[in-house]
Amino acid sequence: MALIVQKFGGSSVSDTDALKRVAQRVVDAHRLGHEVVVVVSAMGDTTDDLVDMAAELNPDAPKREMDMLLSAGERISMSLLAMAITKLGVPAYAYTGRQAGIHTDTRYGKASITGMVPERVARALKLGSVAIVAGFQGVNDNGDVTTLGRGGSDTTAVALAAALHADVCEIYTDVDGLFTADPRIVPLARQVRRLDYQETLELAANGAKILHLRAVEFARRYKVALHVRSSFSNKPGTWIADCDPSPRLTGYLASECFTTKETEMEQPIISGIAHDRSQEKITVVGLPDQPGTAAELFRQVAKADANIDMIVQNIAASTPGRSTITFTCQSGDAKDVLARLEEARDVLDYREIVYNPDIGKLSLVGAAMRTSPGISARFFDALSKANVNVEMISTSEVRISVIVDADRLDEAVRALHHEFQLDASETEAVVYGGTGR
Amino acid sequence: MALIVQKFGGSSVSDTDALKRVAQRVVDAHRLGHEVVVVVSAMGDTTDDLVDMAAELNPDAPKREMDMLLSAGERISMSLLAMAITKLGVPAYAYTGRQAGIHTDTRYGKASITGMVPERVARALKLGSVAIVAGFQGVNDNGDVTTLGRGGSDTTAVALAAALHADVCEIYTDVDGLFTADPRIVPLARQVRRLDYQETLELAANGAKILHLRAVEFARRYKVALHVRSSFSNKPGTWIADCDPSPRLTGYLASECFTTKETEMEQPIISGIAHDRSQEKITVVGLPDQPGTAAELFRQVAKADANIDMIVQNIAASTPGRSTITFTCQSGDAKDVLARLEEARDVLDYREIVYNPDIGKLSLVGAAMRTSPGISARFFDALSKANVNVEMISTSEVRISVIVDADRLDEAVRALHHEFQLDASETEAVVYGGTGR
Repeated sequence: MALIVQKFGGSSVSDTDALKRVAQRVVDAHRLGHEVVVVVSAMGDTTDDLVDMAAELNPDAPKREMDMLLSAGERISMSLLAMAITKLGVPAYAYTGRQAGIHTDTRYGKASITGMVPERVARALKLGSVAIVAGFQGVNDNGDVTTLGRGGSDTTAVALAAALHADVCEIYTDVDGLFTADPRIVPLARQVRRLDYQETLELAANGAKILHLRAVEFARRYKVALHVRSSFSNKPGTWIADCDPSPRLTGYLASECFTTKETEMEQPIISGIAHDRSQEKITVVGLPDQPGTAAELFRQVAKADANIDMIVQNIAASTPGRSTITFTCQSGDAKDVLARLEEARDVLDYREIVYNPDIGKLSLVGAAMRTSPGISARFFDALSKANVNVEMISTSEVRISVIVDADRLDEAVRALHHEFQLDASETEAVVYGGTGR
Repeated sequence: MALIVQKFGGSSVSDTDALKRVAQRVVDAHRLGHEVVVVVSAMGDTTDDLVDMAAELNPDAPKREMDMLLSAGERISMSLLAMAITKLGVPAYAYTGRQAGIHTDTRYGKASITGMVPERVARALKLGSVAIVAGFQGVNDNGDVTTLGRGGSDTTAVALAAALHADVCEIYTDVDGLFTADPRIVPLARQVRRLDYQETLELAANGAKILHLRAVEFARRYKVALHVRSSFSNKPGTWIADCDPSPRLTGYLASECFTTKETEMEQPIISGIAHDRSQEKITVVGLPDQPGTAAELFRQVAKADANIDMIVQNIAASTPGRSTITFTCQSGDAKDVLARLEEARDVLDYREIVYNPDIGKLSLVGAAMRTSPGISARFFDALSKANVNVEMISTSEVRISVIVDADRLDEAVRALHHEFQLDASETEAVVYGGTGR
């Protein structure tokens, strides 16, 4: 008997029919003898509708009230799901973030979990019930509702799995799992069967949208095995862990990620290719070439509360004593960053700012990077042959990322997918290419 | 400076425009220097929509989950209202039933308040903020959400007003106040300026729909002055209390119920006429005429969990040793009561059951009943002249109620309204008759 945490996002609980399907899936796992904890997001467009009403009443709405408002969405979906499961003959109880013992700090809208005391959840499981927990929300020391920000429901699920020592945390989504590349760009992309945490982190951090970075970090820290799979099928999805599945999951679908011959033989050395169109590039030209310049620059940029991703520094050959720093940030933050740089023109003493919003980022991720010195050469050679110009480069132990022209991004992804033999055979492509996203 | 509790029902907060109007009204009272606590219901059809979804998933939904589900509606309206008020420059904080310290027993769906500890509400007021509280909900000793059942938001408002020693509890509704009769039936009905608790209780218990009986009982017990008024106008409404308004309300609209000359001169001896179409009549014919028969009958009826209203017992002249008992109950309960009586046929040893769903109840309420012996005579004389047959009679210190044929109810109401000189003059009728309900 295993303990399974199942997380269903908004598209999996879009209406009452979808809730019935989810209820059946939960009951199926329960009937196999497993203990099941379910984490749900708000139904379909509920959150968007609430945000729209709030924006109409107060574009600068107080954050405490905003979190209270948004938390209503999960209360609705979790109560309804409990009713649907009970209807199928299995007792089910729904718990708010507070009732599930999810304590957070007070940063409304992007709270961090500070403690997990899921006593009521554990008690419900012990009594043979299904426990349902509202995703995305917790309670702070004031007794006020907080929300965990983007990807919050994934984080709730992983945190619960860690606290309850679950055998697996299943993340249900509208695709079959993680793919070697976005199937919309690479029709021959195929599903990845297994990934370790670091590979997944690199993919999530560099543009793969299925899993939120924060949930993966949480899973790695607390050794929570993740299984990303489709809520519309019973196919095995993508298994994310540093070890094999718990033996208590034998016979349950999770283990199939390991037992199919195909994947054992084809365990890829390259996990996949992520891409990201959400970044923009800012170049600060002609900074004084002296110690402390970069520090001062990023101190100014930090005032915009922007996350900086890639950074490159060059000496400008044409103007001795001057250097140039280029960095990328999320497109939503660029305007604010540019304003801060303009304000700090005198302090920073630069010559000019060059702003380029039309870039794309592409990352090749895989364990092979650790051990295969020829990977980089093949990577840049393939891009060169595809006539893709590389504007910035950054690497980690399991990743190479480059910034390229936005117009050339799709072509670059396809070239690399082909070069590293990730393309599915035609028959596989029918299977995986058809899932779209 | 007074402390004012304002309660707004679902029709007063039907959409974002309605929320803006409510926000303006709250801010107006706050700017006059008063402390304001606002109690809100769920927006418009929210509760109905949630109930529909629940019924689709599980017609016999667990009550705990149902209460959790329904409580989401008030969380949405209260958060949005806080945002709208903040937008107008006044700080506002919204509190759930739990956060407002509303403790209840565990009877989901119809919980009773067992304790009020509105510490956070009081603290918010002390800091100059508006406090908004979710109507209709509380928390039980398990830490689970409960709902207070029908009229629950009125009860929340009155309980808060009692605990905070408020100067007045304003109940905002879609009519101008309480009327001498339903204006849809009696076009010349006019608004009542003042009522004492007992008169209001009799009106609420006998079919006047504006105020819930339970909230009025609560108000009487804790001496909370109520002001029932329209959320669509600034007219004075109906003042319900056993004493004059707090002097701290001087200059605030509440006191106008007392200061207008017209009402001081016309303080009516009859408060109004209530009617109720929601009852049905059941007659049990030929019961053994011996001690304990009635007790056994109502013991059986009690199993149906039905509220019995009027009861009449007669000796049946045609069958010596046998008596007949007639009673009324809510139409929703009649089917179940009839089934119980059928089951208990042998125990009760009656001859037959006569069931009549087509009845109406009419009640004349007023302090005059206490002191004016001629009232009853005029009452029955008027009904007789209007050719209305009386089927059952019950009376209290301030009320006479009769059961009549449903088809004759409207005519009976109009006849009594005219007989007791409650009709407005033509000019008044234009003012009050136009408000609908």
